[in-house]
Amino acid sequence: MTTTQSWVESANDAQCDFSIQNLPFGIFSDASNREARVGVAIGNQILDLSVLQAAKLLKVPGANHATFASPTLNSFIALGKAAWAATRTQITTLLQADHTTLRDDAALRSRALHKQADATLHLPVHIPGYTDFYSSEEHATNVGALFRDPNNALMPNWKEIPIGYNGRASSVVVSGTEVRRPNGQIKLPNQERPVFSACRKLDIELETGFIIGQPSKLGTPIRCENAEDHIFGMVLLNDWSARDIQAWEYVPLGPFNAKTFATTISPWIVTMAALEPFRVQQPAQAPEPLQYLRHSGSHAFDIQLEAYLKPADAAQAMRLSHTNFKYMYWTMAQQLAHHSISGCNTNIGDLMGSGTISGPTRDSLGSLLEMSLNGKSPVSLGSGYTRSFLEDGDEVTLKGWCNGDGYRVGFGSCTGKILPAIKMA
Amino acid sequence: MTTTQSWVESANDAQCDFSIQNLPFGIFSDASNREARVGVAIGNQILDLSVLQAAKLLKVPGANHATFASPTLNSFIALGKAAWAATRTQITTLLQADHTTLRDDAALRSRALHKQADATLHLPVHIPGYTDFYSSEEHATNVGALFRDPNNALMPNWKEIPIGYNGRASSVVVSGTEVRRPNGQIKLPNQERPVFSACRKLDIELETGFIIGQPSKLGTPIRCENAEDHIFGMVLLNDWSARDIQAWEYVPLGPFNAKTFATTISPWIVTMAALEPFRVQQPAQAPEPLQYLRHSGSHAFDIQLEAYLKPADAAQAMRLSHTNFKYMYWTMAQQLAHHSISGCNTNIGDLMGSGTISGPTRDSLGSLLEMSLNGKSPVSLGSGYTRSFLEDGDEVTLKGWCNGDGYRVGFGSCTGKILPAIKMA
Repeated sequence: MTTTQSWVESANDAQCDFSIQNLPFGIFSDASNREARVGVAIGNQILDLSVLQAAKLLKVPGANHATFASPTLNSFIALGKAAWAATRTQITTLLQADHTTLRDDAALRSRALHKQADATLHLPVHIPGYTDFYSSEEHATNVGALFRDPNNALMPNWKEIPIGYNGRASSVVVSGTEVRRPNGQIKLPNQERPVFSACRKLDIELETGFIIGQPSKLGTPIRCENAEDHIFGMVLLNDWSARDIQAWEYVPLGPFNAKTFATTISPWIVTMAALEPFRVQQPAQAPEPLQYLRHSGSHAFDIQLEAYLKPADAAQAMRLSHTNFKYMYWTMAQQLAHHSISGCNTNIGDLMGSGTISGPTRDSLGSLLEMSLNGKSPVSLGSGYTRSFLEDGDEVTLKGWCNGDGYRVGFGSCTGKILPAIKMA
Repeated sequence: MTTTQSWVESANDAQCDFSIQNLPFGIFSDASNREARVGVAIGNQILDLSVLQAAKLLKVPGANHATFASPTLNSFIALGKAAWAATRTQITTLLQADHTTLRDDAALRSRALHKQADATLHLPVHIPGYTDFYSSEEHATNVGALFRDPNNALMPNWKEIPIGYNGRASSVVVSGTEVRRPNGQIKLPNQERPVFSACRKLDIELETGFIIGQPSKLGTPIRCENAEDHIFGMVLLNDWSARDIQAWEYVPLGPFNAKTFATTISPWIVTMAALEPFRVQQPAQAPEPLQYLRHSGSHAFDIQLEAYLKPADAAQAMRLSHTNFKYMYWTMAQQLAHHSISGCNTNIGDLMGSGTISGPTRDSLGSLLEMSLNGKSPVSLGSGYTRSFLEDGDEVTLKGWCNGDGYRVGFGSCTGKILPAIKMA
């Protein structure tokens, strides 16, 4: 038995996302308490921080009962990096296999530990702003070739700018929320005018997102070297996309209704502290970026990512893709430095999406658009199922994890099931 | 003396924006009370609704003291259309020339009325989401000709879709806030790579915006016929734009850093009730829009709009433009119907910009980009001043008003002064 094991047995399974090395933060409620509050995932359990705080087992600078009884993590995050670290250290100690305070107090334990299976997980943060980047070279190349010109797939600005756009924060939903197929305008090649239709090319985008933990003021750029200090943690993100609506609407001001109907994130925010051991060197960048986008050291993270699809009548989900966050051309630090270089301010809880994460092979692509070559070459899922795009009833699940030595630091899953479009009168 | 006159004498001036017919809502503080609270502009005064509420002179269904002592209008707006109407009716009565309750109570009047000149005006609402449209045919045509192809200036989708994009809500600021010239990447025609530079083509966009008053749920489109019920009121909006940053960054995902550094709105929200007498027929639309964008009746508003520029060393501001909101091709109702047709939800306080409002003549254009033909033909301001784009120290002021019979329903002004860019080490 080592300090890397917990008395919560399920956390010691080498395949469990929520090891004692992880300790991601989320918001949950359950039958014991219908109020949403702050929890930390450990094994197949949730540790209720509002109970620990009330029992005086947490000493976090600046925190009070409201911090952990809150329906969002924003108040906790606002306490700052020292408070995040203190909380992590104290929870690690409380959960260690040989630590008796909580382990041996059955009454307290029954109030402080709740089965994940019995809990409802909520959106973990209030998200004041949502930005989505476009930072996978493979994805940008594939999409450029399909939507524009195969011979000039990558735009001239792509290797200079971590291209991003403002997304719609209001429609970011937590994993498990059903996703309604959008209606909108689509332009068929053989018709002069667009038609009103349910989306016929509904797609996923396999992404991660990061959550702003330290705000920045209007007019104050964040330096690339310091940018990671502004990040609280990461989530999985599915940037649902209506490709036919997008193709018709996106020139010249970018994607709008094709994306605003829903964006799903995973309920647990994996902290940068937990991800630290999985830091790796980002891909070489040529040309060398402009000065404000330069940072020394390693700023990529080795995060395994998978997408699964379960047709409504299928016995089980089938894997669509297996890729890795470390392939991203632009780092999170560079994204944030670019986001703020104009002086644009950020707030606690802001969500920044990575952009679709595609690898170099057909089984490592992050969207059906790429996998099926915009519907020209349907994907075989196995068991006789094929897909060009999503069908009603399809359930998509993203998974992500870092492989430690005998343990995982994982994100859990990020799922959404497609409901049929609304019939318009 | 008629019921259309107020005992607040300054409100009866035919040139005053804040007649008794107007009664726009805002948030203010002053030396008498440093707490920001809800006020209504009347003449050159502000009526303090928190004082009226405490004095039991307001009976608004659902309101309590916190409603009007709040630093944003969101709580008041959330009470709904009946509460807005009740408030307007009661304030109209209290301010009518022959109504004695407040007029003749000197002690109460001194607490309830504050000079605008002595007050600080704050952002009137918390803005959860900001969307900017692109709905002036003249503007879209002019910009298309300058940035893309003069022979195909209007994109094929433009007359089918009220084109819009997600803006950055965090950097929406109230009139009077100084605006820092952004730094960023610009691509010079004679160089292979972009350079890092302070923006050299800083521009205004003369717009209006509307504020969402009734929210809509995810997955629930707003019908075009009912869309105006969702609007609380309107503001002036200056969508500051860095044209050189924009030209380099905007393909394929739209404007980003070129716009995210600041958006200025006027402090007073003019309600739809006050604008009702100025409803006029919108321009004819050909082709007839798809069904979900159709509405019967008149949905444009006759709002005079002006932009002024005052160079730092000039004695006075000089008029740049004079245009009118009624020229807009797409109506606010159509914008909102389109915004929600995918199922995207809206929240109270959401801001929707009209897009730059240009008329058909050179003196009715809404941006310097258009007036100066992207810098090729500098604008003569008079007194020897010329401008292609904004210079440091320039102060831009937007004005807007509706002309009634002997009175105005006006927006006041929306100003911002340009500060030099930050020097990056």
